[in-house]
Formats: sequence, structure tokens, C-alpha cells
Amino acid sequence: MEAKLYLTPGSFKPTEADQATTVVIDVLRCTTTICTALQAGAKGVIPVRDVDEAVELRTKLGNDLALLAGERSGRMIEGFQMGNSPLEFTPESVGGKLVVMTTSNGTRAFADARSARTVLAGSLVNVAAVARRVAELDRPLAIVCAGNDGGFSIEDTLCGGMILDELATRHRLDLDCNDAGSLALLLFRSSRRSLHETIAQGEHGRYLHTLGYDDDLRFAAEANSQPVVPELRDGTLIAVEN
Amino acid sequence: MEAKLYLTPGSFKPTEADQATTVVIDVLRCTTTICTALQAGAKGVIPVRDVDEAVELRTKLGNDLALLAGERSGRMIEGFQMGNSPLEFTPESVGGKLVVMTTSNGTRAFADARSARTVLAGSLVNVAAVARRVAELDRPLAIVCAGNDGGFSIEDTLCGGMILDELATRHRLDLDCNDAGSLALLLFRSSRRSLHETIAQGEHGRYLHTLGYDDDLRFAAEANSQPVVPELRDGTLIAVEN
Repeated sequence: MEAKLYLTPGSFKPTEADQATTVVIDVLRCTTTICTALQAGAKGVIPVRDVDEAVELRTKLGNDLALLAGERSGRMIEGFQMGNSPLEFTPESVGGKLVVMTTSNGTRAFADARSARTVLAGSLVNVAAVARRVAELDRPLAIVCAGNDGGFSIEDTLCGGMILDELATRHRLDLDCNDAGSLALLLFRSSRRSLHETIAQGEHGRYLHTLGYDDDLRFAAEANSQPVVPELRDGTLIAVEN
Repeated sequence: MEAKLYLTPGSFKPTEADQATTVVIDVLRCTTTICTALQAGAKGVIPVRDVDEAVELRTKLGNDLALLAGERSGRMIEGFQMGNSPLEFTPESVGGKLVVMTTSNGTRAFADARSARTVLAGSLVNVAAVARRVAELDRPLAIVCAGNDGGFSIEDTLCGGMILDELATRHRLDLDCNDAGSLALLLFRSSRRSLHETIAQGEHGRYLHTLGYDDDLRFAAEANSQPVVPELRDGTLIAVEN
């Protein structure tokens, strides 16, 4: 299987990946939160780029059905019902609801990837489920790391490496990786026993620590705790059968 | 020492690094060739962005003093005296000459970095010499990987990791790395016994292999074979005493 990993969304050219299965990763915290919301019974998560677009969309969908969630600089947005902490997304808060979400990095990466044939949300919390879906689709793979303010982030690359490792070992696929994919595999294989430490010591992990989000860091590092596969269908991420 | 590594030139913001020592790395093959040219006795190497700019500059400097060198898509440029293979740069070919050079990735990275306080050229062939100069200057460090067509390349990150390892071990510096710097260190420490294999198996290494440049790949992997420190002074890279 051809497997290309993009360390930052800017390096990903969606036209290249039109026929590929594209996995968007933003471990801290967008895709972790998306998985948690769907696992908790949300009908769907709609990733949008801007705050204004989110507010407008919620009004259109109706305030009973839709909730606004997201962050800027890691903090909740004024007038929104929810932030971007996965711990907020429980059956009580989001069951049966549509979540309109805008975050600094993750939701923008979905917007960039939307022309790809299949777009999935990946995170450590659903890594085996995503890998299974990628193997089942059996097409070239593009892993897009949302990164941090356009730059590289270690936790997204670590997660990309874990997906590649699952494909190579559990699914016994012969992977043809680009340089960034090989590096991600190396990172995961060197850090598999210290996922939480690797995330917590990264740039964004240290920033979230200063905001008091240590529980989110622990939650995001719990591999396969939310075994759901969020797939983009007409602009909405829904849980698909796997 | 604050040590930031940039996996691609696009992620480097020179304003951030005004006061930093900036090391530009393009192992295959621009900075390897620059080191070799200076070690062979070239007076200096002038990195320029475009072919037209290179031709114009040579005319201004005089055809007796200046030579044109470089590549596009790995191949020599029409009308140029030299390509971008380090093996061409001998005392006979470049001794006492100024080399005006334009390459796909490396010389552009120098153009992007030129506002930094000090700009050095680093490669595996001069890694210990560059690290010694960085330690001596004792300022924050920015390592800029020239990459491959704007994207990530494994050999430049490997070399960046080797510079950081030299600083941490031989010079006993306490490094404060960004995520990309930590990853580069991990890559080097995992690959230190297989520098040539890592380079040859990378995307650009495989491409150069198809062009018949296997000797260049071996040459570029010979750590510390050209112990020179190229430093940018008024637009020209010259060998500084170390």
C-alpha cells in the first residue's frame, strides 16, 4: 500500500490524494474530541473553518439540534456551548446532537482535505479502528497531520506512525512510505511505551499543561479507548460501521 | 541553548531567528558540495535563487574568476561549467575561484535565511566543525532543513539531529529543543550506524540513484570528511577559521 504522511497540512496537496483514503490527525485535541463525541452518541460533527461560519450554521440547523464547540488558543470561544476538551463530550451533553466545531488546526485540515475520496478522523483513541477501515478500503493512504499553527507537532506524527505500524503488523500490509512516513514509524516504535510522556513533553502538550488541561493529555494518550471511525459524508463526520 | 529545527524552509520565519545562529542543511547535495568546494580551495560560494541571476552575476564578476554551478531536477544546467555533484569540486576545478551556485532547494534556503545574524552551511561532511562553531557563537540556534521541493527530507533532518547530538554530547550543552528538534535527535540516534543506508533509502536518495549518482550518496554520508565551516558574509559563503 502506498502510504504518504504529511507532517503539516500545508505540505498536503489534496489533488494528489483524490483517490486516496485521507486520515486527518489532530491528537491535541480536535480529532480526539471528535471520536469522543461520536462515541458518546452525537449524530455527527461538522468541522468548519471560522467562528462566524459556525454560528451561522448552527442557526440554520436549529438551536435544539446543534451545539457550538471549539477553541482558539486552546480556550473556549465566547457564545459557544462547549470547548475542545474531550472530557466535556458525554452522552448527556451531546447524545443525539449535531456538533458544529471550529478549532485552530484540526477543523482547517478537514477543510483542506475535503476533496479527497474518503476522509477519516484519526487519533490515538481510535487508532486500531481507523487502521482497520484503511485496510478494508484498500486504496493509497494519505495521513495529514494538523500540526500546531501550521508547524510540525510531535503527537500527530506519533499517531500517524501508530496507524502505519498497525497496518504493517496487524494487517500485514507491505507499505511504500514517503520519508515522513518512515520517520513517523520510527517515532512510534521508539515511543510506544511512553505515549503519554511523548505527548505531554511536546510543545503543544506543555502549552495545554499551562492551561490546566493535564487530564486531556492523559485522555488523548489512551490508545483505542474510543473505537469509532469518524468519516466525512457531505461535510459531516459520522460514525461508520467498521 | 535554545535549539529550533525547521523541517522545511517554509516553516522557518527568519524574523524569529534574527539573533540566532542559523544553519542551512541540504545534504543531497547543495551544502555537501559547498563544503567540498571550500575545502578544495574555492575563494567562496555565492548562493543565488535563479539561473538568470547566476548568469548575470558571473558576467559581472568576470569569467576568469567565477564559475557557474548548480542543478535543476538533479541535472546540470545548460551553459553552466559545473553541476551539483561534490565530486566535481576539486582543487583543479575550483581552487582560487568564486563559485556562483543555484540549486532547487539549498540555495533558496540561503536566500530565505539571509537576514539571520549568522548563517552557516551544514552537512554530514562537516557536522563536527559546524557544531563547534555553533557552540563557540553561543547564541540560540535555528537549523533550517532545505528539504525536497518544499517538503520534508529525511537526510537533512538526520544531519540536523547529528548537529544537535554533537552539541549535547561533545559540547555538553543543555538543549531546549522544539518538537522537530527532538524528533531529529531521535532519528540520528536510531540511525547513527547506518547513515549511508538512511540517505540512500530516502526519497531523494532513490531519485539520485536513478540518475546514477550513487558515488555522491556515499560521499555525502561520510561524516566529517570536509571539516570546513562555510559562513555567509555579504552574500558569499567563505571558510571561516574554527
